[in-house]
Amino acid sequence: MIGTLAILAPGLLGASLAQAAKSRSLAKRVVVWARRVETRMDAARQPWCDAVFDTPEEAAAEADFIVLCPPVESIVPLAERIAEALKPHAIVTDVGSTKSLICRYAHKAIHGGAVFVGSHPMAGSEKSGMAHATAELFTRRPCFVTPLDDTPEKAVKTVVHFWRELDMEVTTIAPEAHDEIVANISHLPHVLATVLCTHLAEHNQTWAAFSGQGLADTTRIAAGSPPLWRSIVEQNREEILRSITAFENELHQFKSALANENYFEVLHKLELGKRFRDKLQR
Amino acid sequence: MIGTLAILAPGLLGASLAQAAKSRSLAKRVVVWARRVETRMDAARQPWCDAVFDTPEEAAAEADFIVLCPPVESIVPLAERIAEALKPHAIVTDVGSTKSLICRYAHKAIHGGAVFVGSHPMAGSEKSGMAHATAELFTRRPCFVTPLDDTPEKAVKTVVHFWRELDMEVTTIAPEAHDEIVANISHLPHVLATVLCTHLAEHNQTWAAFSGQGLADTTRIAAGSPPLWRSIVEQNREEILRSITAFENELHQFKSALANENYFEVLHKLELGKRFRDKLQR
Repeated sequence: MIGTLAILAPGLLGASLAQAAKSRSLAKRVVVWARRVETRMDAARQPWCDAVFDTPEEAAAEADFIVLCPPVESIVPLAERIAEALKPHAIVTDVGSTKSLICRYAHKAIHGGAVFVGSHPMAGSEKSGMAHATAELFTRRPCFVTPLDDTPEKAVKTVVHFWRELDMEVTTIAPEAHDEIVANISHLPHVLATVLCTHLAEHNQTWAAFSGQGLADTTRIAAGSPPLWRSIVEQNREEILRSITAFENELHQFKSALANENYFEVLHKLELGKRFRDKLQR
Repeated sequence: MIGTLAILAPGLLGASLAQAAKSRSLAKRVVVWARRVETRMDAARQPWCDAVFDTPEEAAAEADFIVLCPPVESIVPLAERIAEALKPHAIVTDVGSTKSLICRYAHKAIHGGAVFVGSHPMAGSEKSGMAHATAELFTRRPCFVTPLDDTPEKAVKTVVHFWRELDMEVTTIAPEAHDEIVANISHLPHVLATVLCTHLAEHNQTWAAFSGQGLADTTRIAAGSPPLWRSIVEQNREEILRSITAFENELHQFKSALANENYFEVLHKLELGKRFRDKLQR
């Protein structure tokens, strides 16, 4: 059991995490820091919250296990800010959806006995904010833990154990391999949904009136927060560029088959696509 | 009120149409022909069905209003097959999701007083077959009616009236303009979902295990019937090729902005995409 768990900058995910950790007795105490004073007041009223601090350094100084939950671009600055305040055996992790840059810089920032191990729990909701927090957010969802080559094994085990206790299905993987996977299964689909929307918006806005459930489903994720996604694509720029190029090649193959009236190849692609999709089962 | 309505080759859509026409008293009699004997036996048991014929010619010979419901590639052959059998004032329409080729050839085939007017009721379901038929399938859904320049006005009005009586929101438009719209809002999204799936399948099948609701939504339509979609892309080949090229240009712009670290432009695209998606409201 963790002595004191600090959740820094909780949104929906951080608050759900605190709630789940408390209800499963993963930590004796849960303490919080949030940037906005309203969020701190809100946190102080939650049954899962034992203390709220005005600075991240104060919250981190108390804690044995710290989870950094701000938007991706603020994770490294937050790690740097708390570094000097940490207990010598503190373990720090995060919930950012990109890993290479974060792990490289946070690993450097956290030192003197304390250790940083990156995490990416793939749990979320189209809702946001503490009000929608739920301890069930993590159940049977995938979670990546992304140590560097020289991250101490014991700290990695502690972080893996933490997510497993929340019923997550944990995969330990290098940050770069993680970023390649999420570029392809999450970031590329977001880019395609966005570009399909901008294509339609720029060509003829009235077309949307004739669209059905198919277009609605295909573009749903394009409704995500633009500033949030701007940061994600910035953080995972190289892998996303690679995935776009691979997709462009694949699209070009389909287009050539159609242009050449090679309907055998067109049908083959449609069948291959259906076979992959049918396995997703959602 | 229509005297006799013939539904030729009913699947889910044709059966729903027959049911709706009967329940709203749009026709005195509803008669059916289907290619498979099992479907004919099934139709004969339906409360909305007054007679079933073994050949399309026999069903068409009885009818004042005929709706051709087979897969897109079989619509023109069916129109040619029934042409000689038609009453001199019969009106023939279809439910095909592509219109230019169908209207051009069916217009030529149907002659001697009888008239062909193309239709595309945008109603459907992921389910198929007569068992899932429902008279509510058409309510407040868009429907295109696509006359040629020399299609008699009176026949167009009759067809428009027919779909309006089923509570559809009818737009009269040239077949070519229709095909441009559906290429962009329906066929292009299908191609993109398929190509995203083939890209992921060919690169790394294990990635799918980490995917979430976003990928599932974005790729849902790729589970559609490959032979059906092979025919649709064949029938609307030119417009789909044009829409793929326009999408490629749009994707290239996004990729360039990201490659050049022009995050102002990236954010602009994300915002434009979100604004378009938010208006779809589904």
